Amino acid sequence: MDITALTTGLNTFWVLIAGALVFFMQAGFALVEAGLTRSKNTTNILFKNLMDFSIGTLGFWLIGYGIMFGEGSGFFGSFEFFSTTDHGSALGIPNEAFFFFQLVFAATAATIVSGAMAERTKFVSYLVYSAIITLIIYPISGHWIWGGGWLSQLETPFVDFAGSTVVHSVGGWLALAGALVLGPRIGKYKNGKINAIPGHSITLAALGVFILWLGWFGFNPGSTLGLGDAGLVARIFVTTNAAAAAGAVATLATTWIRYGKPGLSMSLNGVLAGLVAITAGTHAVTPGAAVIIGAIAGVLVVFSVEFFDKVLKIDDPVGAISVHGVCGAFGTLAVGLFATEGGLFTGGGIALLGTQTIGVASVFAWAFGIGLILFFAIKYTIGLRVSAKEEENGLDYYEHGEKAYN
Amino acid sequence: MDITALTTGLNTFWVLIAGALVFFMQAGFALVEAGLTRSKNTTNILFKNLMDFSIGTLGFWLIGYGIMFGEGSGFFGSFEFFSTTDHGSALGIPNEAFFFFQLVFAATAATIVSGAMAERTKFVSYLVYSAIITLIIYPISGHWIWGGGWLSQLETPFVDFAGSTVVHSVGGWLALAGALVLGPRIGKYKNGKINAIPGHSITLAALGVFILWLGWFGFNPGSTLGLGDAGLVARIFVTTNAAAAAGAVATLATTWIRYGKPGLSMSLNGVLAGLVAITAGTHAVTPGAAVIIGAIAGVLVVFSVEFFDKVLKIDDPVGAISVHGVCGAFGTLAVGLFATEGGLFTGGGIALLGTQTIGVASVFAWAFGIGLILFFAIKYTIGLRVSAKEEENGLDYYEHGEKAYN
Amino acid sequence: MDITALTTGLNTFWVLIAGALVFFMQAGFALVEAGLTRSKNTTNILFKNLMDFSIGTLGFWLIGYGIMFGEGSGFFGSFEFFSTTDHGSALGIPNEAFFFFQLVFAATAATIVSGAMAERTKFVSYLVYSAIITLIIYPISGHWIWGGGWLSQLETPFVDFAGSTVVHSVGGWLALAGALVLGPRIGKYKNGKINAIPGHSITLAALGVFILWLGWFGFNPGSTLGLGDAGLVARIFVTTNAAAAAGAVATLATTWIRYGKPGLSMSLNGVLAGLVAITAGTHAVTPGAAVIIGAIAGVLVVFSVEFFDKVLKIDDPVGAISVHGVCGAFGTLAVGLFATEGGLFTGGGIALLGTQTIGVASVFAWAFGIGLILFFAIKYTIGLRVSAKEEENGLDYYEHGEKAYN
Repeated sequence: MDITALTTGLNTFWVLIAGALVFFMQAGFALVEAGLTRSKNTTNILFKNLMDFSIGTLGFWLIGYGIMFGEGSGFFGSFEFFSTTDHGSALGIPNEAFFFFQLVFAATAATIVSGAMAERTKFVSYLVYSAIITLIIYPISGHWIWGGGWLSQLETPFVDFAGSTVVHSVGGWLALAGALVLGPRIGKYKNGKINAIPGHSITLAALGVFILWLGWFGFNPGSTLGLGDAGLVARIFVTTNAAAAAGAVATLATTWIRYGKPGLSMSLNGVLAGLVAITAGTHAVTPGAAVIIGAIAGVLVVFSVEFFDKVLKIDDPVGAISVHGVCGAFGTLAVGLFATEGGLFTGGGIALLGTQTIGVASVFAWAFGIGLILFFAIKYTIGLRVSAKEEENGLDYYEHGEKAYN
Repeated sequence: MDITALTTGLNTFWVLIAGALVFFMQAGFALVEAGLTRSKNTTNILFKNLMDFSIGTLGFWLIGYGIMFGEGSGFFGSFEFFSTTDHGSALGIPNEAFFFFQLVFAATAATIVSGAMAERTKFVSYLVYSAIITLIIYPISGHWIWGGGWLSQLETPFVDFAGSTVVHSVGGWLALAGALVLGPRIGKYKNGKINAIPGHSITLAALGVFILWLGWFGFNPGSTLGLGDAGLVARIFVTTNAAAAAGAVATLATTWIRYGKPGLSMSLNGVLAGLVAITAGTHAVTPGAAVIIGAIAGVLVVFSVEFFDKVLKIDDPVGAISVHGVCGAFGTLAVGLFATEGGLFTGGGIALLGTQTIGVASVFAWAFGIGLILFFAIKYTIGLRVSAKEEENGLDYYEHGEKAYN
Repeated sequence: MDITALTTGLNTFWVLIAGALVFFMQAGFALVEAGLTRSKNTTNILFKNLMDFSIGTLGFWLIGYGIMFGEGSGFFGSFEFFSTTDHGSALGIPNEAFFFFQLVFAATAATIVSGAMAERTKFVSYLVYSAIITLIIYPISGHWIWGGGWLSQLETPFVDFAGSTVVHSVGGWLALAGALVLGPRIGKYKNGKINAIPGHSITLAALGVFILWLGWFGFNPGSTLGLGDAGLVARIFVTTNAAAAAGAVATLATTWIRYGKPGLSMSLNGVLAGLVAITAGTHAVTPGAAVIIGAIAGVLVVFSVEFFDKVLKIDDPVGAISVHGVCGAFGTLAVGLFATEGGLFTGGGIALLGTQTIGVASVFAWAFGIGLILFFAIKYTIGLRVSAKEEENGLDYYEHGEKAYN
């Protein structure tokens, strides 16, 4: 191999392996969601996680990829069926490598939603909305930021390196819309009381979080799309890991102080909170700033989960809205506060903070707004929610005729 | 490092990481088989999966590698103990890297069999036949195709890029022979009725399938044995993933239409069916063709499972015969239908389809034939099946004195 | 990319991916420990595994890295807060890549201890001692061997390629000190009888061991810190895998002969025993020697577990002392017996065997001695053990208010 072939080979290998790790996050999400919900709905939640990736694979290829990366306008990319336009070679990698990497990101956004809507959503409706997310919703806001759209064209361009906003907030705000339209699970808020509905296996949830943490070593550093700057890739490993660890420690401390005991399922969400928050600025902050960002996210997620549960009474069985929506928004804003130049803390400057705020707000408006329209449309056509009888006896039996455990 | 060292380093890294992913498929198979069988036999099935890889490692090194890749004749490679003949450097990688990659493939073929023979096979007999598979059976047909043997010497050589036939069909047809000689589990076919015996944890099965899907990103693209053609490697990621996704969707649809409800455990097999089927031609077909191949496999696996279960009354607890044998054969034939040149659909031509048919038939004859001999030989010597009492009370207690769950 | 950038990029990629695989071993350890203990303590053990990595990340960065790799004296490295001294570029990789790789090793040593002390240690005390291990204890003996300290300065320098002693024995001897100071679980040794306390899920333990085996393909070959010698990296894959397989087979045979039945949980420990033992000399022995080392370790672990359990009556729920302490020491000594030059078996020579013995003994004295001091200090200050009531009812409820399974 000559120098050119070696360069292409190395960068392609990097992007594909990083993509494979991001793919494996599907297993992580499936386990976290299954673990934090009841065993009567386990087949259903696993099935949803399997199908959103499978349908997403076909849907993103069908039109999502073109909408996200095609030239188009500032708001939409090009509408082409089965796009074969080469968006990779400008990056020095084959188009298929870039496509695969983007595909696993799109599927991540879609899979976030299923957690917040778990234990009460009709299976067929899930398939429909999950397809629409990867076909249309995710690619449009993705185009704004990563596809050359308006947020990337601002004088101070919007910074979202690996997708705190593009992937996680979009998923989180769609989850918020979905949980709102769907309403809480039966028994969650009864006679003015808020009842915790514990999941059936914290072991699955913990394994899921370890898998997600591993996957994030593809998600964040892989977003360099190449190894030309090895120091940058290494730094992203360190900042990603530091934020996750700090998130765990901060949530541990927060739950210990606030509830008198250190809580594992919340600390698992603390890891995810730290990871989601560092994702936007993982390339641009020092390890010290990563610890601060992760730690703030680890505290924030506790109060956010409480806020949605106790104040707004929105039932989110796995905390997806707080982890992905709220911490994704926080992490995106944090780039404006912690981005450095030359390794010194300088702050991103007011202009960057301004852009970050505009981006966070616009994506919230888009994802939450279109989410409300989508879920209401489903509600009043094919229906969004299973019957009360089905919900009480479990979706596994009624929807699939297959119990998870025998 | 100079250009030569860089090239060797990069390609070696690629083959070894791909091999590590294929190794991890052992965990995937273990979980799928454990999840789809009953908890009284879980220790036993996990143990078998652990030991087939461990014994396979030693056995493939002892003589399997030499038989498969040694020069020898068109039918057998060379018989050398602990072969140190260098089969790697012609490929530009160290022999140990090529050996490791081939070893994890051999172990995959062996482990397929345990699923079809689960819940009733004696442990000691399992160890014996599993060793014979990696020592002798797999390497011989492997030699025909990948070791320079007769199928690779035909005028239109047989195409099996990553082993739909070499690995999966061989495993599947051995599984068929084994399940046939062994007979069904007690209670499976009683008074003319066919009883489903549900597995103890679909969660394990789902996690196993996600792990297998991940491992396939080593299995298929790793079979390039180098990154000299980065575009090819990237394309293999895309076709592999597309076939898996299409398999899941097609099985979902088929079970929904046929049984009235979408079934998860069958859809998990749909993923595997798509993956097994694309393996032979993953390098030679377009993403669109990969979707078609995966989708056909996803339908085929449903009818095949029904056929073996209801018509032939062969009890295969996890569907291994259909997934690996039938879909492996189908995928191999599909190369003759869908292989392209220059990215356009041209079909492989009649000559290629002819060769593929010869290869599929020959390997069936070999694996199924030798399988019958092997399993009958074991049956009438050390015995193949546990006692009825042992089967009813579970193999874990009687064979190992260790229950899986307490 | 030019040749220099390609070299750095390739080596950095290698070290980071290997580090990611080692990170994933945290999930492996968590599952093994959870699986081999009772379900009433599952949340607790998972939580400990999550937190030792999280706190270790911060602690190793805070001072551990400097103590281990800073210049300092033969006994300690430099004491610097948040060291930014570049220890990577001399190795041709960014400092952050080297730091990340070393961090995941440090966390491995820490996590070993939790298994031996499971089901009865106070959570807060765990956090304290786990932090001290990664902050101070592990880096000091690590400095002796990998940081340029006295064991690396001997005329015949101490050989511990990937950490049989640096990582595993240190963890194992700390575990021994901990289990000794802590005392056995209630009911383990009662009225002169030794009671086995079976774990709650061998499925989790088996999955954990598969994950650890996978992780070891980062642990051992990654310790080359580069791909300049691709043949060496490939050989390390082969010797690592061979020792693991031989360990499994040897333990299988030993338990079958000794207890009349082949035991899975012990065979899982046999895999780990083989892996731990090969770690010191994985780069320097032939595949044949790797099989011998792994097989001896697989026998040794059975007798060692018996010895600690039945003779010394030290209660180690998962066998961590035997697997990591004893087999780590054995593997380190084995380098003196099996190291080769030029691929031929020559033995390491008396001088090397002498150094290896000195190293093993010194690290035992350090880790076990400081461990006793540490655990007694905790015992007589904040307390090391939960109350009898808490132990009997399970740590999950009392320490965390969260049961693992519902």
